[in-house]
Amino acid sequence: MQKYELAPALTDEYVTSVWETLPRHIMPTLLLRGKESYRLFGCEITIATETFQHTGSFKFRAAYNLLSSLPKQQIVTASSGNYGQAVAYACQLLGKTCTIVMPSTSAQVKIDAVESYGGVVDLIDVHTISRNARVEELLDAQPGAFWAHPYDDYRVVAGNSTLGMEILRAADFDIIVAPVGGGGLSSGQVLARDRRASTTEIIGAEPHAGNDAARSLRNGMLLFNESEPDTIADGARTLGLGELNWEILRRGIADIIEVTDETTADALRYYFGSMNLKTEPTGALSLGAILTRPERFQGKRVCCIVSGGNVDPKLFASLVNA
Amino acid sequence: MQKYELAPALTDEYVTSVWETLPRHIMPTLLLRGKESYRLFGCEITIATETFQHTGSFKFRAAYNLLSSLPKQQIVTASSGNYGQAVAYACQLLGKTCTIVMPSTSAQVKIDAVESYGGVVDLIDVHTISRNARVEELLDAQPGAFWAHPYDDYRVVAGNSTLGMEILRAADFDIIVAPVGGGGLSSGQVLARDRRASTTEIIGAEPHAGNDAARSLRNGMLLFNESEPDTIADGARTLGLGELNWEILRRGIADIIEVTDETTADALRYYFGSMNLKTEPTGALSLGAILTRPERFQGKRVCCIVSGGNVDPKLFASLVNA
Repeated sequence: MQKYELAPALTDEYVTSVWETLPRHIMPTLLLRGKESYRLFGCEITIATETFQHTGSFKFRAAYNLLSSLPKQQIVTASSGNYGQAVAYACQLLGKTCTIVMPSTSAQVKIDAVESYGGVVDLIDVHTISRNARVEELLDAQPGAFWAHPYDDYRVVAGNSTLGMEILRAADFDIIVAPVGGGGLSSGQVLARDRRASTTEIIGAEPHAGNDAARSLRNGMLLFNESEPDTIADGARTLGLGELNWEILRRGIADIIEVTDETTADALRYYFGSMNLKTEPTGALSLGAILTRPERFQGKRVCCIVSGGNVDPKLFASLVNA
Repeated sequence: MQKYELAPALTDEYVTSVWETLPRHIMPTLLLRGKESYRLFGCEITIATETFQHTGSFKFRAAYNLLSSLPKQQIVTASSGNYGQAVAYACQLLGKTCTIVMPSTSAQVKIDAVESYGGVVDLIDVHTISRNARVEELLDAQPGAFWAHPYDDYRVVAGNSTLGMEILRAADFDIIVAPVGGGGLSSGQVLARDRRASTTEIIGAEPHAGNDAARSLRNGMLLFNESEPDTIADGARTLGLGELNWEILRRGIADIIEVTDETTADALRYYFGSMNLKTEPTGALSLGAILTRPERFQGKRVCCIVSGGNVDPKLFASLVNA
């Protein structure tokens, strides 16, 4: 397997040990055949949905793998979404305490979710202080605490690679499509593919409004969005890829396809109407990539990752009813 | 196992053969742990969801089992909902042809679904001719055709019993809760319980507005609604139980709980918000029964059957957004 400068610990042996132990603590992904996918999309689609994973998204794989490896008892992170819930629940299971920095504008349902797992929510005015600056403040105040990064950590990537392991054990797909935000999920799929020495292509699906990763891949250097992208795919509102994620993706990912919000919404409606699947907008990005460039997938056996299902009821109602 | 006057063919041997062969043709049910169910509902809830079954509801189990047993090539039935889709898809797989009688007021999405599986839709004005009368007309016109009944047939009950088999193989639940319309699903669970000689109680969940089965059980005789009940649980808008279903349920079911539409909607919102599960209103009846009479389930290990997930997007949006 490839060696990574930024993560020498990411060895065959380490990944193997994660693949052996983490599945005891997570829900296996749910694989579903895409209804009429050949007729509708020109390829044979299998959906790997993480909507029934603990805390409703793939993020629990990373959070549990990272936090269970730490002796530290106090965890701090910043997240307005799925990673906050995943860290809070992993901490609850592992007997750790955590503080989750969230914007004061976060939906109450997301604050409630973190608190329901016993997490302490630290609300900030993002116009006054950045999330990272607030995390630094909290770490200064609690010197023994650990900053759990949502994607730029080899233990996060290895945790996410268990999803690729499950997918590739189920079938030799020609392509796996994964949403791209910070690159934690997609780099995990590259890692899984490489660890299994498979020829499966990994393709990323990124919101058109925040296409830093697609631009980075085209230019061969890590580029960033100037501000948080305005997209319904709230799990991909990142400024850029993590450095380790970029190191893995720059050689390992075959393509990154930019998806408009309109197309993401079309994909979400297909899941709802034809598959009885509730997805969050970010979760619908992968199918959105196929809708955007169907010729890239023509005749292939494709696994579409649905990264999570946590979505505001008002937004969801407006999308399915459009 | 109990013998039934109305279905002498419903023997141990027959049920065993269905349990051995039908699983090759169906999706296994998906079992999910109810999030925080002890705290919220006072009992330990597992959900058995049939929303990812072929055609999106448990009805495919019955339809495939019934139709695969027949030499006849031409099938006729009346259904505005899940059974029509299930029969159409089973016929497509088995190389049969089918005509589905549907009210002309049916939602276009339901007509499209039947046609997408190759079924012929026969639209009627229900003020001019009843569904059954139209089925009789079609049978007269095609003497070799078979009328596939949605619940009052031992092969339907046996097909549905495979769900109970899967549930009881997974765990020794104290109670299984199933929605009750014509009684096909609930009588199938009684059959599975009896075949396994288990002590699990089977409890029915019926819309309050169409409580014929609850009244039948209280009075010890088969009673009917005077007209099609007005309830959001469209899968339970039946006039009464089938005769065979009643023979099985009258001794075999422990209780039938009447659920208001408001409570069914509360249950649907819990599935949506806490479980990422899209259900149709009828599918939410079982949890609605627990919300209605929590003391009946106190401290028990309960399996809640979610019968299906096919629901009009407008109705669903209005329910989750209420």
